[in-house]
Amino acid sequence: MDDGRIDVVGIGNAIVDVIAQTTDRFLVDQGLQKGSMALIDEPRAHELYDLMGPAIEASGGSAANSMVGVASFGGTAAYIGKVRDDTLGHVFAHDMRASGVSFDVPAGPEGPATGRSLILVTPDAQRTMNTFLGISSLLQPSDVDAELVERGGILFCEGYLWDVESAKQSIRRAMDIARAAGNRVALTVSDSFCVERHYDEFVALVSGPVDILFANEAELAALYRCDFDTAVERVRSDVHVGCLTRGAEGSVLVSGDETAEVKAEPVVDVIDTTGAGDQYAAGTLYGLARGMSLADAGRLGSLAAAEVISHVGPRPQHPLKNFL
Amino acid sequence: MDDGRIDVVGIGNAIVDVIAQTTDRFLVDQGLQKGSMALIDEPRAHELYDLMGPAIEASGGSAANSMVGVASFGGTAAYIGKVRDDTLGHVFAHDMRASGVSFDVPAGPEGPATGRSLILVTPDAQRTMNTFLGISSLLQPSDVDAELVERGGILFCEGYLWDVESAKQSIRRAMDIARAAGNRVALTVSDSFCVERHYDEFVALVSGPVDILFANEAELAALYRCDFDTAVERVRSDVHVGCLTRGAEGSVLVSGDETAEVKAEPVVDVIDTTGAGDQYAAGTLYGLARGMSLADAGRLGSLAAAEVISHVGPRPQHPLKNFL
Repeated sequence: MDDGRIDVVGIGNAIVDVIAQTTDRFLVDQGLQKGSMALIDEPRAHELYDLMGPAIEASGGSAANSMVGVASFGGTAAYIGKVRDDTLGHVFAHDMRASGVSFDVPAGPEGPATGRSLILVTPDAQRTMNTFLGISSLLQPSDVDAELVERGGILFCEGYLWDVESAKQSIRRAMDIARAAGNRVALTVSDSFCVERHYDEFVALVSGPVDILFANEAELAALYRCDFDTAVERVRSDVHVGCLTRGAEGSVLVSGDETAEVKAEPVVDVIDTTGAGDQYAAGTLYGLARGMSLADAGRLGSLAAAEVISHVGPRPQHPLKNFL
Repeated sequence: MDDGRIDVVGIGNAIVDVIAQTTDRFLVDQGLQKGSMALIDEPRAHELYDLMGPAIEASGGSAANSMVGVASFGGTAAYIGKVRDDTLGHVFAHDMRASGVSFDVPAGPEGPATGRSLILVTPDAQRTMNTFLGISSLLQPSDVDAELVERGGILFCEGYLWDVESAKQSIRRAMDIARAAGNRVALTVSDSFCVERHYDEFVALVSGPVDILFANEAELAALYRCDFDTAVERVRSDVHVGCLTRGAEGSVLVSGDETAEVKAEPVVDVIDTTGAGDQYAAGTLYGLARGMSLADAGRLGSLAAAEVISHVGPRPQHPLKNFL
C-alpha cells in the first residue's frame, strides 16, 4: 500500500519443513501422537530423520505460512522470526521474499541451526510434526521492529512461541506496540498441547490483549475446558472476532451477536493437511484486514485451506488471488 | 537379492532439485530454453535463485531418480554419484538410503558444494532446468566401486555425465567393468543439447558398449539426424533394446525385429513433468531386469511416469510396486 500500511504482520517460529510419507505403524513405533506437534532436541531430530522416509524440504512455520497466504491473496504482509545464516536459513528467507512477504530480521551468525520440523504424513493425509526449534526459539525482543509492527493493521501471533521464554517476551513486546498504535492483535492457538503447557497464560491472553482468535475444536476445548457451543459463547465475550475451525465440518466465525457458519470447500483428493490451519488463517486475516464480512472472510479461509491440502507442502502452489 | 546381485546400478550427477512455479515470460526474460537443461556456474545459480519464486527442495539427479523408482517397484538398486558433506549432501544421501537405494560413495570433505538444479515449472507443466553441477562433476574413477558394478545386472548411465571430463572417465570405467562381468549397459541420452555438445562420443557409445538405449524424440533426432521412423531402424541395429519415448504419444520399444508400442498412461491433471523420463526408465529397467517382455516393461515405465507427473517433484510419492 502506498501509505506504508501493511495488512498483516506475522510473528512466529521460522521453520523449514521436512515432509515424508509414513505409516500409522511408524508413528506408534516412535511413540508419536498423530496430528500433534512435539518439540524435539537436535539429537532426536537426527535420529528421527535417519529413521524416516525420503522427504521434501519446504519453508514452513505457522505464522510464516499464513503471511505467504496473505501475500498470495494480494495483501501486504511482513514477518518477524529468526533463522541462522545457514543453508536452510537462506532457503527460508528466499522463500519469504520470493512470496512477496517483507522479512528483514537479520540471520543469526552463530548459535543453533535454523529450525526444522520433521513432518510425517500418514495415508489419511494427517500430519504429525516433530519440531527442532533451533535458533527460531532465540527470537529476541530486539528483533521486533517497532516501526514495522506499528504499520500493520493486524499483528498475527503464533501460540507456538509460548514454548520459549525469550520468544514469549518478543511476542509480548510486539503486542504492546500493536495495541499502543491502535492496531488489532490476532492469536492462533497453534496446538492443544501447547495450550496445556501454558494454560494460564493463554487464558490471560484471550481475555486480555487478543482481538482476533483462531482455534480448532481441540484447541478450543483445551482453552475453555467445556463443550464447543459453550466455548463459542465464551469466545464472543472474550475477543472481538473468533474464527473457530472444525476440519471437514467447516468453521464458525463469531463477533458479538453476529455468527457466520462457513462450509469447508470440498477437495477431491486430500493429500497432506500440513498448513490447512495456516492458510485458513491467511484467507480470513486477508478478509478481515480488507473489511469484508465474517462470512466472506471465512470463505476465503476455506478456499485457501482447500488449495493447500490438495498437495504436499504448507504453502499455496497457485496464487490465492485467483479466488477473489 | 540373497545372492548379492543388484537389479540396476545407476551412475550420474548427484543433484538436489530446487523447484519453483514460473511464467513463460520469466523464461524469456532470463533467456532460458523451455524444456532443456542448461549448465550454470555458482554465481549465476545465486543470481537466478534470487530472481525465482518460492521453491521446494527435493533430491533429484536423473539416474538417482531412476534408481529410487527401481527400488520403489521392489527392485534392488545402487547409486554412484558425488555429494559434499554439506546440508544438501546430507539431504541427498538420506533420501537415497531412505528410498532403499544403496549409496556408499563418501561425501567430499572439501571442494564445491553439492550440486543443485534450479527447476522452473511453467503453467503447461513443462520444466526448464538450470544446473550448477558443484561437486557432482568431480566424480572420480576411484569413486566407482568395481565389486558393486559387477553385481549389477544392468549398469544405467546418465548422458549428462558427458559434460565433465573426470565424470566421463568414471562412467567409462564403470562401463568397462560391467561389460567384463557380462552385465548389460544402459544409457539415457538425457538431453538433446547434451548430445549436440558431445555428438561423436554419443554416436560411438550407442554403436559400441551400449546395450539398452533410452531417448526421447528430440534426443533421437539429435543423435541420428533423421526422422523418427528412420532413427528407430538405426536403433534396432545399434543396440539390443531401444526405449524411445514420445511424451503424451507413449513409447516405442524395439529389440531386433521385435516392436512394442506402449500408450502413455492417462493423467487427469499434469502438474510437473520433472522426472517423467527418469521414472519411465525406472519402470522399464525394472521390467527388463526381471525378464519381462518389451511391452510389459514399457507399460511399467508409462505407469511410473504417470505417477510422477501428477505431483511436484521428480520421485514417486506412492510405492510403484502397487502397479505390479
